[in-house]
Amino acid sequence: MKDEIQLRDHIDGRRDEFVDYFKNLVSQPSISARDEGVTECAEMLAGMLTELGATSRIMPTKGQPVVYGEVSSGDPDAFTLLCYGHYDVQPPEPLELWDSPPFEPEIRDGRLFGRGTGDNKGQLLAHAMAVSAWVETSGAPPINVKFVFEGEEESGSPNLGDFVAQNRELLAADLVLISDGTMHPSGAPLISLGNRGVIGITLRARGADRDNHSGNKGGVAPNPAWMLIHVLARTVDPSGRILVDGFYDHVRSVGDTDLQIISRLPFDPEEFGATMGLPRVDMSKEEYYRKIMLEPYFNISGLKSGYTGPGSKTIIPSEAEVRIDIRTVVDQSFDDLVPKLKRHVAEIDPRVEVLVRGIGGMEPSRTPADHPAIAPIAEAIERARGTAPYINLSSGGSLPNSVWPGVLGVPHVGIPYANADENNHSPNENMDLECFHMGIQTSARVFEALARARRAGTL
Amino acid sequence: MKDEIQLRDHIDGRRDEFVDYFKNLVSQPSISARDEGVTECAEMLAGMLTELGATSRIMPTKGQPVVYGEVSSGDPDAFTLLCYGHYDVQPPEPLELWDSPPFEPEIRDGRLFGRGTGDNKGQLLAHAMAVSAWVETSGAPPINVKFVFEGEEESGSPNLGDFVAQNRELLAADLVLISDGTMHPSGAPLISLGNRGVIGITLRARGADRDNHSGNKGGVAPNPAWMLIHVLARTVDPSGRILVDGFYDHVRSVGDTDLQIISRLPFDPEEFGATMGLPRVDMSKEEYYRKIMLEPYFNISGLKSGYTGPGSKTIIPSEAEVRIDIRTVVDQSFDDLVPKLKRHVAEIDPRVEVLVRGIGGMEPSRTPADHPAIAPIAEAIERARGTAPYINLSSGGSLPNSVWPGVLGVPHVGIPYANADENNHSPNENMDLECFHMGIQTSARVFEALARARRAGTL
Repeated sequence: MKDEIQLRDHIDGRRDEFVDYFKNLVSQPSISARDEGVTECAEMLAGMLTELGATSRIMPTKGQPVVYGEVSSGDPDAFTLLCYGHYDVQPPEPLELWDSPPFEPEIRDGRLFGRGTGDNKGQLLAHAMAVSAWVETSGAPPINVKFVFEGEEESGSPNLGDFVAQNRELLAADLVLISDGTMHPSGAPLISLGNRGVIGITLRARGADRDNHSGNKGGVAPNPAWMLIHVLARTVDPSGRILVDGFYDHVRSVGDTDLQIISRLPFDPEEFGATMGLPRVDMSKEEYYRKIMLEPYFNISGLKSGYTGPGSKTIIPSEAEVRIDIRTVVDQSFDDLVPKLKRHVAEIDPRVEVLVRGIGGMEPSRTPADHPAIAPIAEAIERARGTAPYINLSSGGSLPNSVWPGVLGVPHVGIPYANADENNHSPNENMDLECFHMGIQTSARVFEALARARRAGTL
Repeated sequence: MKDEIQLRDHIDGRRDEFVDYFKNLVSQPSISARDEGVTECAEMLAGMLTELGATSRIMPTKGQPVVYGEVSSGDPDAFTLLCYGHYDVQPPEPLELWDSPPFEPEIRDGRLFGRGTGDNKGQLLAHAMAVSAWVETSGAPPINVKFVFEGEEESGSPNLGDFVAQNRELLAADLVLISDGTMHPSGAPLISLGNRGVIGITLRARGADRDNHSGNKGGVAPNPAWMLIHVLARTVDPSGRILVDGFYDHVRSVGDTDLQIISRLPFDPEEFGATMGLPRVDMSKEEYYRKIMLEPYFNISGLKSGYTGPGSKTIIPSEAEVRIDIRTVVDQSFDDLVPKLKRHVAEIDPRVEVLVRGIGGMEPSRTPADHPAIAPIAEAIERARGTAPYINLSSGGSLPNSVWPGVLGVPHVGIPYANADENNHSPNENMDLECFHMGIQTSARVFEALARARRAGTL
């Protein structure tokens, strides 16, 4: 306990120094979408890692470079944690909506404003600063720490998978830690164990090569809107169950640990309804979280056919289109599901085309809730913050996490450090400096907890 | 046969005189959509009817006046034919696409060009001129002829039903003759026994009061596109059969006469396919014509939901809409079907609203093919033109014909006189003067045939 207090005090004492690093990194633009300042930012970040006690190097990819770093614990049996983050940022436009320039970071109301503060520079720095605190107080961290900070996450991480595949030995680790996104709106900390995948599909049906008059040809000209409707109605039932043969083959069954974790999550039907524009959510807590976290969803994001403008046009449309995004859960995959869906549609109506938007999609990924790292991490977060974290089995949305178990064979865990109103991807992006500071404290504590679990033989 | 030749020669001899009347009537604008020249045109037309041997008067309605006229045969037992037409015209815009001004009729290549030539001034005049020919050659037509020429057909005939209801005795007749629309593209004459009705419906489903992120809320936020799809799929089956309870209750069974008439219609799968943008029509002649003429069709003319622009937006839409026009056949009616459809939709998903576009819709109407007037009329047309007419049991599209059987209790028959390329509702509207002339000959011959059938006791 003496060490814990010493470490905390040490980090407290370096608040201003850490904020200076943070401001410097934010002041360097690194817009991957238009290759603006990305290399310069990689160099600056590599320099910072060295100053903070890690070795570092800039590793090229087919796109923007990865800033790689590591610090050894000195113990050959130590646990190895790989911290993933990204130093590239979203374009800052529209500039006129910013209260201070996006690359001239400014502190107001205890927050640092600037593009990339919360997403993701402040969060990745927290890990490096926690390492520095351990180095300064104890000579080395209690675990081995590796850093993979990529430069094109905001462009869809097109080269991350190849980079990991080409550097499997260098990146070998026991766990990947990702700090991105936000804590719970209440301010409570969060652990996120995974994410759903997404597959973008367009179904398109064609009838005649022109629109026809629905009086003169109604009944004899094919109507592609009807083709789509009958295919869709036979693809998902009214309850949302997907009727494609074999669609659920690889979906994991829900375990008792999953249900226990769900039971500890917050749930208020009116409050949750309000966040999506409904008077209330008409389902139980378990149903709600199972549907978001553990079940696939076959979404229609757009329907288009014929004429829907003012007045009316009595036509039989020549074409109809539906935009779909399928949210998948582990262990579903693009390669398994897309051929099944194509076969399904072709059997119902071969006139309906299945077009895949984007190649491969983003795969689902989820670390089991009973993975032995979770309990010590949760305990460390509670010790650092005084509040137990909520554990999300999975976010409903999609992230490029599957590369870690999929390519490197290592599970991942997310501990977001940003405030819920960080305005990422928007003007006036910011990170609450207390969140930044508590992030450093949290990482330092997590390192220690993982080391302890390793020594205890549970990890 | 002597009378027939005498009558034909008489009409031939008055070609120029009749064309002069025609040009005068076309030179008078009568645009009901913006109340331009309609009253003046009514007065001119009434004057022409008087000059052509009929009594005439202008009868007010809540909208534009009806020009009413009649000529008695002098025989109290004579057949009475009511000729319906409309003297109002479509707006002529865009003016720059006309080769000669729309209200300065000009003859080119044997056609009279001008707004309202084919639709419908030339066609209604043909009846009046046929009357004149009978009056001049025989002192009176062989049947009683009444004229109802309305002034707001191009505005949807909003007052025709009331006008007929308020003048039932005056308008009493054995048959209504309508000459509007065009002959067969081959130049062959046509008899049209009816039309399908149309009911315009919009189905609208609402989910949350905003679009939601399909990752974060997919599975827990309602998706109105799916609501519509499941309602629609249970409303019409993949073969086009409408599944609304009682939808076919009042549809007439198809008779042998109907099938005989269908068997005489032209049918070329490739040629018919080409008219609608298909390599061929994949159905038999009987199936094709039954579907167009004798069966209802539940058309989707438009689908709209969410985002279908460039790229993709992974949203759960807040709203979805489908535009429908239902083509109905005798004896289906708006008043019977709309409540049935509303009940059907409410039973499947009460969240889906049924909105009726327009009030009442346009009702189907059809004179049975074995009505005793049809055979003599067909024979008269063949005698006048040297070619037997095709008989259409019904047009696929919708016309305001149902007022005749519905309000007046009188069947109707259509004999279009215009050339297939009359360009009605378009620039360079025209009527082939040979078609106009043959229309007069045809009407004169039809009067005689109806008189003969009445004398023979078959009508």
